[in-house]
Amino acid sequence: MTHKALLEQIKVKKSFLCVGLDVDKELIPGHLKSEPDAIFTFCKKIIEATAPYCVAYKPNIAFFEAYGLEGWKSLAKVIGFLNREYPNIFTIADAKRADIGNSSMKYAKAYFEQFEFDSVTISPYMGKDSIEPFLEYEGKHAILLALTSNEGASDFQMLHSEGKLLYKEVIKKSRNWENAHRLMYVVGATKAQALKEIRKIIPDSFLLIPGVGAQGGSLEEVAVNGLNHECGLLVNSSRGIIYASTGDDFDQVAASIAKDLQMQMAFHLNKKGVV
Amino acid sequence: MTHKALLEQIKVKKSFLCVGLDVDKELIPGHLKSEPDAIFTFCKKIIEATAPYCVAYKPNIAFFEAYGLEGWKSLAKVIGFLNREYPNIFTIADAKRADIGNSSMKYAKAYFEQFEFDSVTISPYMGKDSIEPFLEYEGKHAILLALTSNEGASDFQMLHSEGKLLYKEVIKKSRNWENAHRLMYVVGATKAQALKEIRKIIPDSFLLIPGVGAQGGSLEEVAVNGLNHECGLLVNSSRGIIYASTGDDFDQVAASIAKDLQMQMAFHLNKKGVV
Repeated sequence: MTHKALLEQIKVKKSFLCVGLDVDKELIPGHLKSEPDAIFTFCKKIIEATAPYCVAYKPNIAFFEAYGLEGWKSLAKVIGFLNREYPNIFTIADAKRADIGNSSMKYAKAYFEQFEFDSVTISPYMGKDSIEPFLEYEGKHAILLALTSNEGASDFQMLHSEGKLLYKEVIKKSRNWENAHRLMYVVGATKAQALKEIRKIIPDSFLLIPGVGAQGGSLEEVAVNGLNHECGLLVNSSRGIIYASTGDDFDQVAASIAKDLQMQMAFHLNKKGVV
Repeated sequence: MTHKALLEQIKVKKSFLCVGLDVDKELIPGHLKSEPDAIFTFCKKIIEATAPYCVAYKPNIAFFEAYGLEGWKSLAKVIGFLNREYPNIFTIADAKRADIGNSSMKYAKAYFEQFEFDSVTISPYMGKDSIEPFLEYEGKHAILLALTSNEGASDFQMLHSEGKLLYKEVIKKSRNWENAHRLMYVVGATKAQALKEIRKIIPDSFLLIPGVGAQGGSLEEVAVNGLNHECGLLVNSSRGIIYASTGDDFDQVAASIAKDLQMQMAFHLNKKGVV
Protein backbone atom coordinates (compact mmCIF):
# COMPACT_ATOMS: atom_id res chain seq x y z
CA MET A 1 0.00 0.00 0.00
CA THR A 2 1.41 3.38 -0.94
CA HIS A 3 1.80 6.38 1.36
CA LYS A 4 -0.75 8.18 -0.81
CA ALA A 5 -3.34 5.39 -0.53
CA LEU A 6 -2.96 5.38 3.25
CA LEU A 7 -3.51 9.15 3.39
CA GLU A 8 -6.65 8.79 1.28
CA GLN A 9 -8.08 6.23 3.70
CA ILE A 10 -7.34 8.53 6.63
CA LYS A 11 -9.33 11.27 4.91
CA VAL A 12 -12.20 9.00 3.85
CA LYS A 13 -12.63 7.50 7.33
CA LYS A 14 -11.55 10.59 9.29
CA SER A 15 -9.51 8.24 11.40
CA PHE A 16 -5.92 7.33 12.15
CA LEU A 17 -6.86 4.38 14.32
CA CYS A 18 -4.94 1.11 14.19
CA VAL A 19 -6.51 -1.89 15.91
CA GLY A 20 -3.95 -4.21 17.49
CA LEU A 21 -4.67 -7.93 17.27
CA ASP A 22 -2.96 -9.36 20.39
CA VAL A 23 -5.02 -12.50 20.46
CA ASP A 24 -4.79 -14.60 23.60
CA LYS A 25 -7.06 -17.66 23.68
CA GLU A 26 -7.45 -17.24 27.44
CA LEU A 27 -9.04 -13.84 26.92
CA ILE A 28 -11.41 -14.40 24.03
CA PRO A 29 -15.14 -14.89 24.69
CA GLY A 30 -16.09 -18.33 25.98
CA HIS A 31 -18.50 -19.10 23.18
CA LEU A 32 -15.69 -18.82 20.59
CA LYS A 33 -13.23 -21.12 22.35
CA SER A 34 -14.73 -24.27 20.85
CA GLU A 35 -14.41 -22.99 17.26
CA PRO A 36 -11.94 -24.99 15.12
CA ASP A 37 -9.80 -21.86 14.63
CA ALA A 38 -10.82 -19.66 17.54
CA ILE A 39 -8.01 -17.15 16.95
CA PHE A 40 -9.02 -16.52 13.34
CA THR A 41 -12.74 -16.44 14.13
CA PHE A 42 -12.14 -13.90 16.89
CA CYS A 43 -9.99 -11.71 14.59
CA LYS A 44 -12.52 -11.94 11.75
CA LYS A 45 -15.36 -10.77 13.97
CA ILE A 46 -13.29 -7.97 15.47
CA ILE A 47 -12.23 -6.84 11.98
CA GLU A 48 -15.76 -6.94 10.55
CA ALA A 49 -17.05 -4.87 13.46
CA THR A 50 -14.26 -2.28 13.65
CA ALA A 51 -13.26 -1.86 9.97
CA PRO A 52 -15.47 1.21 9.41
CA TYR A 53 -13.56 3.11 12.10
CA CYS A 54 -9.92 2.21 11.55
CA VAL A 55 -7.32 2.51 8.79
CA ALA A 56 -4.90 -0.18 9.97
CA TYR A 57 -4.70 -3.57 11.70
CA LYS A 58 -1.65 -4.70 13.59
CA PRO A 59 -1.41 -8.41 14.38
CA ASN A 60 1.13 -8.82 17.19
CA ILE A 61 3.25 -11.68 15.89
CA ALA A 62 4.36 -12.77 19.38
CA PHE A 63 0.81 -13.78 20.24
CA PHE A 64 0.49 -15.93 17.11
CA GLU A 65 3.99 -17.40 17.41
CA ALA A 66 3.21 -18.51 20.96
CA TYR A 67 0.77 -21.08 19.55
CA GLY A 68 3.38 -22.59 17.26
CA LEU A 69 2.22 -23.99 13.91
CA GLU A 70 -1.41 -23.47 14.83
CA GLY A 71 -0.73 -19.77 15.46
CA TRP A 72 1.04 -19.34 12.12
CA LYS A 73 -1.89 -20.97 10.35
CA SER A 74 -4.24 -18.52 12.03
CA LEU A 75 -1.99 -15.60 11.11
CA ALA A 76 -1.96 -16.68 7.45
CA LYS A 77 -5.76 -16.74 7.51
CA VAL A 78 -6.00 -13.33 9.20
CA ILE A 79 -3.71 -11.55 6.73
CA GLY A 80 -5.36 -13.39 3.82
CA PHE A 81 -8.78 -12.26 5.02
CA LEU A 82 -7.61 -8.66 5.44
CA ASN A 83 -6.00 -8.49 1.99
CA ARG A 84 -9.03 -10.07 0.32
CA GLU A 85 -11.86 -8.27 2.08
CA TYR A 86 -10.24 -4.97 3.10
CA PRO A 87 -7.54 -4.16 0.54
CA ASN A 88 -7.69 -0.47 1.48
CA ILE A 89 -6.72 -1.10 5.07
CA PHE A 90 -3.04 -0.83 5.99
CA THR A 91 -1.55 -3.94 7.61
CA ILE A 92 1.29 -4.01 10.12
CA ALA A 93 3.15 -7.16 11.19
CA ASP A 94 4.24 -6.19 14.69
CA ALA A 95 7.27 -8.46 14.68
CA LYS A 96 10.18 -6.29 15.89
CA ARG A 97 12.61 -8.20 13.67
CA ALA A 98 16.14 -7.41 12.35
CA ASP A 99 19.34 -9.39 11.98
CA ILE A 100 22.47 -9.25 9.81
CA GLY A 101 21.73 -8.37 6.19
CA ASN A 102 21.16 -11.79 4.66
CA SER A 103 18.87 -12.78 7.54
CA SER A 104 16.93 -9.50 7.45
CA MET A 105 16.35 -10.18 3.73
CA LYS A 106 14.67 -13.41 4.80
CA TYR A 107 12.47 -11.66 7.36
CA ALA A 108 11.47 -9.11 4.73
CA LYS A 109 10.59 -11.97 2.40
CA ALA A 110 8.49 -13.59 5.13
CA TYR A 111 6.37 -10.49 5.84
CA PHE A 112 6.23 -8.86 2.41
CA GLU A 113 6.11 -11.90 0.10
CA GLN A 114 4.83 -14.87 2.11
CA PHE A 115 2.31 -13.08 4.32
CA GLU A 116 1.89 -9.93 2.20
CA PHE A 117 1.77 -7.35 4.95
CA ASP A 118 2.11 -3.68 4.02
CA SER A 119 4.64 -3.08 6.78
CA VAL A 120 6.65 -4.68 9.56
CA THR A 121 8.06 -3.28 12.81
CA ILE A 122 11.86 -3.55 13.15
CA SER A 123 14.48 -3.04 15.85
CA PRO A 124 17.50 -0.75 15.26
CA TYR A 125 20.19 -2.24 17.52
CA MET A 126 22.14 -3.91 14.67
CA GLY A 127 22.24 -0.76 12.52
CA LYS A 128 21.96 0.17 8.87
CA ASP A 129 22.66 -3.12 7.09
CA SER A 130 20.12 -4.91 9.32
CA ILE A 131 17.38 -2.46 8.29
CA GLU A 132 17.96 -1.64 4.62
CA PRO A 133 16.75 -5.06 3.34
CA PHE A 134 13.29 -4.14 4.68
CA LEU A 135 13.30 -0.91 2.65
CA GLU A 136 13.81 -2.47 -0.77
CA TYR A 137 10.14 -3.17 -1.45
CA GLU A 138 8.12 -0.66 -3.47
CA GLY A 139 4.83 0.07 -1.71
CA LYS A 140 5.98 -1.55 1.57
CA HIS A 141 7.10 0.14 4.78
CA ALA A 142 9.36 -0.66 7.72
CA ILE A 143 8.46 0.81 11.08
CA LEU A 144 11.56 1.38 13.17
CA LEU A 145 11.51 1.28 16.98
CA ALA A 146 12.55 4.72 18.18
CA LEU A 147 11.10 5.42 21.64
CA THR A 148 8.96 2.62 23.01
CA SER A 149 6.09 2.80 25.50
CA ASN A 150 7.48 0.44 28.15
CA GLU A 151 9.45 1.15 31.30
CA GLY A 152 12.61 -0.42 29.84
CA ALA A 153 12.71 2.35 27.20
CA SER A 154 14.73 4.30 29.76
CA ASP A 155 17.47 1.64 29.95
CA PHE A 156 19.11 2.37 26.59
CA GLN A 157 16.85 4.50 24.35
CA MET A 158 17.11 7.44 26.72
CA LEU A 159 20.86 7.28 27.35
CA HIS A 160 22.84 10.25 26.17
CA SER A 161 24.89 8.98 23.24
CA GLU A 162 27.56 11.41 22.11
CA GLY A 163 25.48 14.32 23.32
CA LYS A 164 22.15 13.11 21.95
CA LEU A 165 19.51 10.81 23.33
CA LEU A 166 20.00 7.39 21.70
CA TYR A 167 16.49 7.27 20.22
CA LYS A 168 17.08 10.62 18.52
CA GLU A 169 20.37 9.36 17.13
CA VAL A 170 18.52 6.30 15.80
CA ILE A 171 16.01 8.54 14.04
CA LYS A 172 18.66 10.91 12.66
CA LYS A 173 20.98 8.20 11.35
CA SER A 174 18.12 6.27 9.79
CA ARG A 175 17.23 9.25 7.58
CA ASN A 176 20.44 8.64 5.61
CA TRP A 177 19.74 4.99 4.87
CA GLU A 178 18.82 3.78 1.39
CA ASN A 179 15.08 4.22 0.73
CA ALA A 180 14.54 6.01 4.04
CA HIS A 181 11.28 7.40 2.63
CA ARG A 182 9.82 3.94 3.33
CA LEU A 183 10.55 4.24 7.06
CA MET A 184 7.96 4.97 9.71
CA TYR A 185 8.74 5.12 13.45
CA VAL A 186 7.36 3.62 16.66
CA VAL A 187 6.93 6.23 19.39
CA GLY A 188 5.15 5.20 22.58
CA ALA A 189 2.08 7.20 23.55
CA THR A 190 3.29 7.24 27.14
CA LYS A 191 6.04 9.60 25.92
CA ALA A 192 3.73 12.21 24.35
CA GLN A 193 5.94 15.14 25.35
CA ALA A 194 8.85 13.63 23.41
CA LEU A 195 6.66 13.73 20.29
CA LYS A 196 7.16 17.48 19.98
CA GLU A 197 10.90 17.06 19.73
CA ILE A 198 10.63 14.06 17.41
CA ARG A 199 8.40 16.09 15.10
CA LYS A 200 11.21 18.64 14.80
CA ILE A 201 13.55 15.90 13.48
CA ILE A 202 11.04 14.10 11.25
CA PRO A 203 8.17 16.49 10.50
CA ASP A 204 6.89 14.43 7.58
CA SER A 205 7.28 10.80 8.68
CA PHE A 206 4.47 8.55 9.81
CA LEU A 207 4.59 7.60 13.48
CA LEU A 208 3.01 4.46 14.87
CA ILE A 209 1.91 5.20 18.41
CA PRO A 210 1.17 2.23 20.66
CA GLY A 211 0.29 2.60 24.31
CA VAL A 212 -3.00 4.52 24.12
CA GLY A 213 -5.49 2.85 26.45
CA ALA A 214 -4.23 -0.16 28.45
CA GLN A 215 -0.70 1.26 28.69
CA GLY A 216 -1.91 4.68 29.86
CA GLY A 217 -1.22 7.06 26.95
CA SER A 218 -3.58 9.96 26.14
CA LEU A 219 -5.00 10.38 22.63
CA GLU A 220 -5.44 14.13 23.17
CA GLU A 221 -1.75 14.64 24.00
CA VAL A 222 -0.65 12.43 21.13
CA ALA A 223 -2.82 14.29 18.61
CA VAL A 224 -1.76 17.74 19.77
CA ASN A 225 1.95 16.90 19.73
CA GLY A 226 2.13 14.40 16.91
CA LEU A 227 -0.24 15.31 14.07
CA ASN A 228 1.36 16.92 11.03
CA HIS A 229 -0.19 18.65 8.01
CA GLU A 230 -1.23 15.39 6.33
CA CYS A 231 -1.91 13.48 9.60
CA GLY A 232 1.32 11.47 9.97
CA LEU A 233 0.02 9.32 12.81
CA LEU A 234 -1.29 5.83 13.30
CA VAL A 235 -2.50 5.41 16.87
CA ASN A 236 -2.86 1.82 18.03
CA SER A 237 -5.16 0.37 20.62
CA SER A 238 -5.19 -3.37 21.24
CA ARG A 239 -6.50 -4.63 24.57
CA GLY A 240 -8.66 -1.54 25.09
CA ILE A 241 -10.71 -2.49 22.03
CA ILE A 242 -10.54 -6.23 21.49
CA TYR A 243 -11.07 -7.28 25.12
CA ALA A 244 -13.49 -4.51 26.13
CA SER A 245 -16.17 -7.16 26.53
CA THR A 246 -15.78 -10.91 26.91
CA GLY A 247 -19.48 -11.55 26.36
CA ASP A 248 -21.38 -12.45 23.19
CA ASP A 249 -21.41 -8.73 22.37
CA PHE A 250 -17.57 -8.44 22.27
CA ASP A 251 -17.52 -7.36 18.63
CA GLN A 252 -20.21 -4.71 19.07
CA VAL A 253 -18.51 -3.31 22.18
CA ALA A 254 -15.20 -3.26 20.27
CA ALA A 255 -16.94 -1.40 17.42
CA SER A 256 -18.41 1.13 19.80
CA ILE A 257 -15.03 1.88 21.40
CA ALA A 258 -13.35 2.08 17.99
CA LYS A 259 -16.08 4.45 16.84
CA ASP A 260 -15.60 6.63 19.91
CA LEU A 261 -11.85 6.84 19.21
CA GLN A 262 -12.54 7.57 15.52
CA MET A 263 -14.81 10.47 16.49
CA GLN A 264 -12.14 11.96 18.73
CA MET A 265 -9.65 11.54 15.88
CA ALA A 266 -12.04 13.23 13.41
CA PHE A 267 -12.19 16.18 15.80
CA HIS A 268 -8.38 16.48 15.92
CA LEU A 269 -7.98 15.98 12.15
CA ASN A 270 -10.52 18.70 11.58
CA LYS A 271 -8.87 21.05 14.06
CA LYS A 272 -5.52 20.48 12.33
CA GLY A 273 -7.09 21.13 8.92
CA VAL A 274 -6.33 17.68 7.52
CA VAL A 275 -10.00 16.91 6.78
CA MET B 1 19.61 -27.93 29.30
CA THR B 2 21.57 -26.75 32.33
CA HIS B 3 24.83 -24.80 32.29
CA LYS B 4 26.47 -27.83 33.91
CA ALA B 5 25.22 -30.25 31.24
CA LEU B 6 26.52 -27.96 28.50
CA LEU B 7 29.96 -27.82 30.16
CA GLU B 8 30.02 -31.61 30.37
CA GLN B 9 29.37 -31.90 26.63
CA ILE B 10 32.14 -29.43 25.89
CA LYS B 11 34.55 -31.62 27.86
CA VAL B 12 33.32 -34.91 26.36
CA LYS B 13 33.56 -33.66 22.78
CA LYS B 14 36.50 -31.28 23.32
CA SER B 15 34.54 -28.80 21.27
CA PHE B 16 32.70 -25.51 21.61
CA LEU B 17 31.41 -25.59 18.05
CA CYS B 18 27.88 -24.49 17.21
CA VAL B 19 26.61 -25.33 13.72
CA GLY B 20 24.29 -22.69 12.31
CA LEU B 21 21.35 -23.92 10.26
CA ASP B 22 20.71 -21.06 7.80
CA VAL B 23 18.86 -23.20 5.30
CA ASP B 24 18.24 -21.66 1.92
CA LYS B 25 16.55 -23.96 -0.61
CA GLU B 26 18.50 -22.27 -3.40
CA LEU B 27 21.76 -23.39 -1.85
CA ILE B 28 21.10 -26.98 -0.85
CA PRO B 29 22.34 -29.83 -3.06
CA GLY B 30 20.29 -30.45 -6.20
CA HIS B 31 19.46 -34.06 -5.37
CA LEU B 32 17.66 -32.99 -2.19
CA LYS B 33 15.47 -30.33 -3.78
CA SER B 34 12.80 -32.83 -4.86
CA GLU B 35 12.38 -34.25 -1.33
CA PRO B 36 8.93 -33.57 0.19
CA ASP B 37 10.56 -31.59 3.04
CA ALA B 38 13.92 -30.61 1.55
CA ILE B 39 14.74 -28.22 4.42
CA PHE B 40 14.27 -30.86 7.08
CA THR B 41 16.05 -33.57 5.08
CA PHE B 42 19.03 -31.26 4.55
CA CYS B 43 19.17 -30.35 8.26
CA LYS B 44 18.83 -33.99 9.34
CA LYS B 45 21.76 -35.05 7.16
CA ILE B 46 23.90 -32.13 8.29
CA ILE B 47 23.11 -32.92 11.92
CA GLU B 48 23.82 -36.64 11.61
CA ALA B 49 27.16 -35.90 9.97
CA THR B 50 28.36 -33.10 12.25
CA ALA B 51 26.94 -34.12 15.66
CA PRO B 52 30.13 -35.85 16.82
CA TYR B 53 32.03 -32.58 16.51
CA CYS B 54 29.70 -29.91 17.87
CA VAL B 55 27.91 -29.13 21.12
CA ALA B 56 25.17 -26.85 19.75
CA TYR B 57 22.91 -26.25 16.75
CA LYS B 58 21.53 -22.85 15.90
CA PRO B 59 18.61 -22.75 13.46
CA ASN B 60 18.40 -19.22 12.08
CA ILE B 61 14.68 -18.52 12.40
CA ALA B 62 14.70 -15.91 9.59
CA PHE B 63 15.52 -18.60 7.05
CA PHE B 64 12.63 -20.81 8.18
CA GLU B 65 10.18 -17.91 8.54
CA ALA B 66 10.92 -16.86 4.95
CA TYR B 67 9.13 -20.01 3.76
CA GLY B 68 5.97 -19.22 5.71
CA LEU B 69 3.96 -22.15 7.10
CA GLU B 70 6.11 -24.66 5.27
CA GLY B 71 9.22 -23.24 6.97
CA TRP B 72 7.63 -23.42 10.42
CA LYS B 73 6.67 -27.05 9.81
CA SER B 74 10.28 -27.79 8.88
CA LEU B 75 11.53 -25.97 11.98
CA ALA B 76 9.20 -28.01 14.20
CA LYS B 77 10.61 -31.20 12.67
CA VAL B 78 14.22 -30.04 13.05
CA ILE B 79 13.91 -29.15 16.75
CA GLY B 80 11.85 -32.30 17.37
CA PHE B 81 14.56 -34.41 15.73
CA LEU B 82 17.32 -32.70 17.73
CA ASN B 83 15.54 -33.12 21.06
CA ARG B 84 14.69 -36.76 20.36
CA GLU B 85 17.97 -37.97 18.86
CA TYR B 86 20.51 -35.63 20.41
CA PRO B 87 19.19 -34.59 23.84
CA ASN B 88 22.72 -33.69 24.99
CA ILE B 89 23.21 -31.07 22.30
CA PHE B 90 22.39 -27.46 23.17
CA THR B 91 19.84 -25.80 20.88
CA ILE B 92 19.66 -22.10 20.04
CA ALA B 93 16.72 -20.43 18.30
CA ASP B 94 18.47 -17.55 16.55
CA ALA B 95 15.40 -15.34 16.54
CA LYS B 96 16.59 -11.94 17.88
CA ARG B 97 13.22 -11.33 19.52
CA ALA B 98 12.03 -8.93 22.28
CA ASP B 99 9.01 -6.70 22.75
CA ILE B 100 7.11 -5.19 25.68
CA GLY B 101 6.74 -7.57 28.62
CA ASN B 102 3.49 -9.33 27.77
CA SER B 103 4.64 -9.89 24.17
CA SER B 104 8.09 -11.13 25.22
CA MET B 105 6.30 -13.64 27.47
CA LYS B 106 4.63 -14.96 24.33
CA TYR B 107 7.92 -15.22 22.44
CA ALA B 108 9.45 -17.08 25.39
CA LYS B 109 6.48 -19.43 25.34
CA ALA B 110 6.97 -20.00 21.60
CA TYR B 111 10.63 -20.98 21.86
CA PHE B 112 10.74 -22.65 25.26
CA GLU B 113 7.36 -24.39 25.39
CA GLN B 114 6.12 -24.85 21.83
CA PHE B 115 9.41 -25.55 20.09
CA GLU B 116 11.41 -26.58 23.20
CA PHE B 117 14.68 -24.88 22.39
CA ASP B 118 17.29 -24.57 25.16
CA SER B 119 17.88 -20.91 24.35
CA VAL B 120 16.85 -17.98 22.17
CA THR B 121 18.74 -14.91 20.98
CA ILE B 122 17.22 -11.57 22.03
CA SER B 123 17.69 -7.89 21.25
CA PRO B 124 18.25 -5.35 24.05
CA TYR B 125 16.83 -2.10 22.61
CA MET B 126 13.60 -2.17 24.64
CA GLY B 127 15.38 -2.77 27.96
CA LYS B 128 14.86 -4.78 31.11
CA ASP B 129 11.15 -5.58 31.02
CA SER B 130 11.46 -6.81 27.41
CA ILE B 131 14.16 -9.32 28.42
CA GLU B 132 13.23 -10.62 31.86
CA PRO B 133 10.32 -12.78 30.60
CA PHE B 134 12.92 -14.87 28.72
CA LEU B 135 14.83 -15.47 31.96
CA GLU B 136 12.02 -17.05 33.94
CA TYR B 137 12.56 -20.59 32.67
CA GLU B 138 14.66 -23.00 34.75
CA GLY B 139 17.20 -24.73 32.52
CA LYS B 140 16.67 -22.29 29.63
CA HIS B 141 18.89 -19.43 28.50
CA ALA B 142 18.49 -16.11 26.71
CA ILE B 143 21.37 -14.90 24.57
CA LEU B 144 21.49 -11.11 24.49
CA LEU B 145 22.89 -9.19 21.51
CA ALA B 146 25.85 -7.20 22.79
CA LEU B 147 28.30 -6.51 19.96
CA THR B 148 27.31 -8.00 16.62
CA SER B 149 29.51 -9.08 13.72
CA ASN B 150 28.00 -6.87 11.01
CA GLU B 151 29.07 -3.46 9.75
CA GLY B 152 25.98 -1.78 11.26
CA ALA B 153 27.26 -2.69 14.74
CA SER B 154 29.12 0.63 14.61
CA ASP B 155 25.92 2.65 14.12
CA PHE B 156 24.63 2.37 17.69
CA GLN B 157 26.40 -0.40 19.63
CA MET B 158 29.69 1.46 19.47
CA LEU B 159 28.38 4.92 20.35
CA HIS B 160 29.68 6.40 23.56
CA SER B 161 26.70 6.43 25.89
CA GLU B 162 27.27 8.43 29.05
CA GLY B 163 30.97 7.73 28.86
CA LYS B 164 30.69 4.05 27.99
CA LEU B 165 30.29 2.20 24.71
CA LEU B 166 26.62 1.27 24.37
CA TYR B 167 27.28 -2.47 24.07
CA LYS B 168 29.22 -2.39 27.34
CA GLU B 169 26.37 -0.52 29.01
CA VAL B 170 23.99 -3.21 27.71
CA ILE B 171 26.16 -5.93 29.26
CA LYS B 172 26.60 -4.07 32.57
CA LYS B 173 22.94 -3.20 33.05
CA SER B 174 21.82 -6.69 32.14
CA ARG B 175 23.81 -8.16 35.02
CA ASN B 176 21.32 -6.57 37.44
CA TRP B 177 18.23 -8.06 35.82
CA GLU B 178 16.22 -10.82 37.48
CA ASN B 179 17.75 -14.26 36.79
CA ALA B 180 20.74 -12.73 34.99
CA HIS B 181 22.60 -16.02 35.54
CA ARG B 182 20.52 -17.36 32.64
CA LEU B 183 21.92 -14.76 30.24
CA MET B 184 24.54 -15.45 27.61
CA TYR B 185 25.80 -12.81 25.12
CA VAL B 186 26.29 -12.50 21.38
CA VAL B 187 29.71 -11.08 20.48
CA GLY B 188 30.72 -11.06 16.82
CA ALA B 189 33.95 -12.86 15.95
CA THR B 190 34.90 -9.96 13.71
CA LYS B 191 35.38 -7.96 16.92
CA ALA B 192 37.82 -10.37 18.59
CA GLN B 193 39.86 -7.57 20.18
CA ALA B 194 36.76 -6.35 22.03
CA LEU B 195 36.47 -9.80 23.61
CA LYS B 196 39.31 -9.02 25.99
CA GLU B 197 37.43 -6.04 27.40
CA ILE B 198 34.14 -7.92 27.49
CA ARG B 199 35.79 -10.71 29.46
CA LYS B 200 36.74 -8.15 32.10
CA ILE B 201 33.06 -7.24 32.57
CA ILE B 202 31.65 -10.77 32.37
CA PRO B 203 34.46 -13.25 33.07
CA ASP B 204 32.09 -16.14 33.73
CA SER B 205 29.32 -15.74 31.15
CA PHE B 206 28.92 -17.84 28.03
CA LEU B 207 29.47 -15.93 24.80
CA LEU B 208 27.97 -16.98 21.48
CA ILE B 209 30.37 -15.95 18.75
CA PRO B 210 29.02 -15.82 15.21
CA GLY B 211 31.06 -14.60 12.29
CA VAL B 212 33.83 -17.21 12.16
CA GLY B 213 34.27 -18.31 8.55
CA ALA B 214 32.04 -16.64 5.95
CA GLN B 215 31.97 -13.34 7.88
CA GLY B 216 35.76 -13.28 8.29
CA GLY B 217 36.37 -13.87 12.02
CA SER B 218 39.39 -15.87 13.23
CA LEU B 219 38.95 -18.86 15.58
CA GLU B 220 42.46 -18.41 16.95
CA GLU B 221 41.81 -14.80 18.01
CA VAL B 222 38.43 -15.68 19.47
CA ALA B 223 39.86 -18.56 21.50
CA VAL B 224 42.81 -16.60 22.83
CA ASN B 225 40.70 -13.61 23.85
CA GLY B 226 37.45 -15.28 24.78
CA LEU B 227 38.02 -18.62 26.51
CA ASN B 228 37.58 -18.64 30.28
CA HIS B 229 38.48 -21.28 32.88
CA GLU B 230 35.47 -23.49 32.06
CA CYS B 231 35.37 -22.61 28.29
CA GLY B 232 32.61 -19.98 28.22
CA LEU B 233 32.39 -19.89 24.44
CA LEU B 234 30.13 -21.23 21.74
CA VAL B 235 31.61 -20.43 18.33
CA ASN B 236 29.18 -20.63 15.45
CA SER B 237 29.82 -21.43 11.84
CA SER B 238 26.93 -21.65 9.40
CA ARG B 239 27.63 -21.21 5.70
CA GLY B 240 31.27 -22.30 6.09
CA ILE B 241 30.06 -25.76 7.14
CA ILE B 242 26.65 -26.43 5.66
CA TYR B 243 27.37 -25.13 2.13
CA ALA B 244 31.00 -26.24 1.89
CA SER B 245 29.93 -28.65 -0.84
CA THR B 246 26.77 -28.65 -2.92
CA GLY B 247 27.42 -32.13 -4.27
CA ASP B 248 26.17 -35.51 -3.04
CA ASP B 249 28.98 -35.46 -0.49
CA PHE B 250 27.75 -32.24 1.21
CA ASP B 251 27.24 -33.95 4.57
CA GLN B 252 30.65 -35.62 4.58
CA VAL B 253 32.38 -32.37 3.59
CA ALA B 254 30.43 -30.57 6.34
CA ALA B 255 31.56 -33.25 8.81
CA SER B 256 35.16 -32.89 7.75
CA ILE B 257 35.13 -29.11 8.22
CA ALA B 258 33.35 -29.46 11.57
CA LYS B 259 35.94 -32.02 12.63
CA ASP B 260 38.75 -29.70 11.63
CA LEU B 261 37.25 -26.88 13.71
CA GLN B 262 36.71 -29.29 16.61
CA MET B 263 40.37 -30.29 16.53
CA GLN B 264 41.48 -26.66 16.61
CA MET B 265 39.09 -26.13 19.53
CA ALA B 266 40.47 -29.17 21.36
CA PHE B 267 43.92 -27.63 21.02
CA HIS B 268 42.78 -24.34 22.56
CA LEU B 269 40.75 -26.04 25.32
CA ASN B 270 43.78 -28.08 26.20
CA LYS B 271 46.10 -25.09 26.19
CA LYS B 272 43.68 -23.25 28.48
CA GLY B 273 43.52 -26.26 30.81
CA VAL B 274 39.78 -26.83 30.35
CA VAL B 275 40.26 -30.40 29.12
